[in-house]
Amino acid sequence: MTEPQHDCCHTPKSVVQPDKTALLKRLARLEGQVRGIAGMIEGDRYCVDVLTQIAAARSALDAVAQQLLENHLKGCVARAVNEGNSDEAIAEVMALLKKMR
Amino acid sequence: MTEPQHDCCHTPKSVVQPDKTALLKRLARLEGQVRGIAGMIEGDRYCVDVLTQIAAARSALDAVAQQLLENHLKGCVARAVNEGNSDEAIAEVMALLKKMR
Amino acid sequence: MTEPQHDCCHTPKSVVQPDKTALLKRLARLEGQVRGIAGMIEGDRYCVDVLTQIAAARSALDAVAQQLLENHLKGCVARAVNEGNSDEAIAEVMALLKKMR
Amino acid sequence: MTEPQHDCCHTPKSVVQPDKTALLKRLARLEGQVRGIAGMIEGDRYCVDVLTQIAAARSALDAVAQQLLENHLKGCVARAVNEGNSDEAIAEVMALLKKMR
Repeated sequence: MTEPQHDCCHTPKSVVQPDKTALLKRLARLEGQVRGIAGMIEGDRYCVDVLTQIAAARSALDAVAQQLLENHLKGCVARAVNEGNSDEAIAEVMALLKKMR
Repeated sequence: MTEPQHDCCHTPKSVVQPDKTALLKRLARLEGQVRGIAGMIEGDRYCVDVLTQIAAARSALDAVAQQLLENHLKGCVARAVNEGNSDEAIAEVMALLKKMR
Repeated sequence: MTEPQHDCCHTPKSVVQPDKTALLKRLARLEGQVRGIAGMIEGDRYCVDVLTQIAAARSALDAVAQQLLENHLKGCVARAVNEGNSDEAIAEVMALLKKMR
Repeated sequence: MTEPQHDCCHTPKSVVQPDKTALLKRLARLEGQVRGIAGMIEGDRYCVDVLTQIAAARSALDAVAQQLLENHLKGCVARAVNEGNSDEAIAEVMALLKKMR
């Protein structure tokens, strides 16, 4: 399936991420990290070692979120600004940033 | 396999988490959340919906971290304090908190 | 001095915040909170009470940051998007979000 | 007034911070940072410059919090552990960490 080479074209509630394959690879790796953390607890590993891995998984999750947010700003929000609907799109971003803190 | 009913008995670098089964259940659920996020990107879902799920997965990961940290303070750190090694154990906790921010 | 009733008109590197008076009030209050925290330490208050006040001051600082960020998105970034310079403006926002985490 | 040379001796609800003078200096500097941020908004400075200063003030505030938390763990919490009251002291720390996130 060839990756459609256009940027984040936003039909209502549907977005093709421009870097979809890369994002999916990162999420597959993150899934493995979470499984690895479970394996450490299963294997009675020292708490600090497990917590260090959790901090790494959190950074990986944050990195995916930052990439998606950048795509969203460049795609959906920029489109909304050009269409004159910036307030609604920006309010949505602010609500999102609050959840992501 | 009965859960060993003792608290976090710390032989060097090995710790049996007192709530091991519950932690493993939470991590299995988190793994499913990460897979779900990948599925949303695969299915070209709207960025904000995906980011909202990422925020939920992050909270779940933080909750596991907080539980482990509490176990660690009650087990390993309290033991180190009683053995007169509190400075080293507390320095380790502070370094951990820095990573987890 | 009447508050100029226009939105965040962005001449290079100079911005009149639309809610300038409110922001300055919040910062004056925050200054008082920081002085209060110093007073608690001066008065040998219990650590947890001081740390609780620091958490409150942090939330106040974050709230000012969120308001400024929203003003920036609605003003400078929306203007850059309309002028066709969205990538630079969005890259600046992403770098800012990284610092503010 | 000589700085009492004992560590964080915890009479109920009263604690002499071992690095009291240093903490007070940092808070005085932070107060100046908050005043500086207000001055930037008063002077219609570019949003991103103001937000960058807010991120710096936040780091300074976090650094004071981390120092106080370390003092608390080494003083009050270690004392509670030695007196056999670790669960209550650790529950208090966990509630605090939740507020400080």
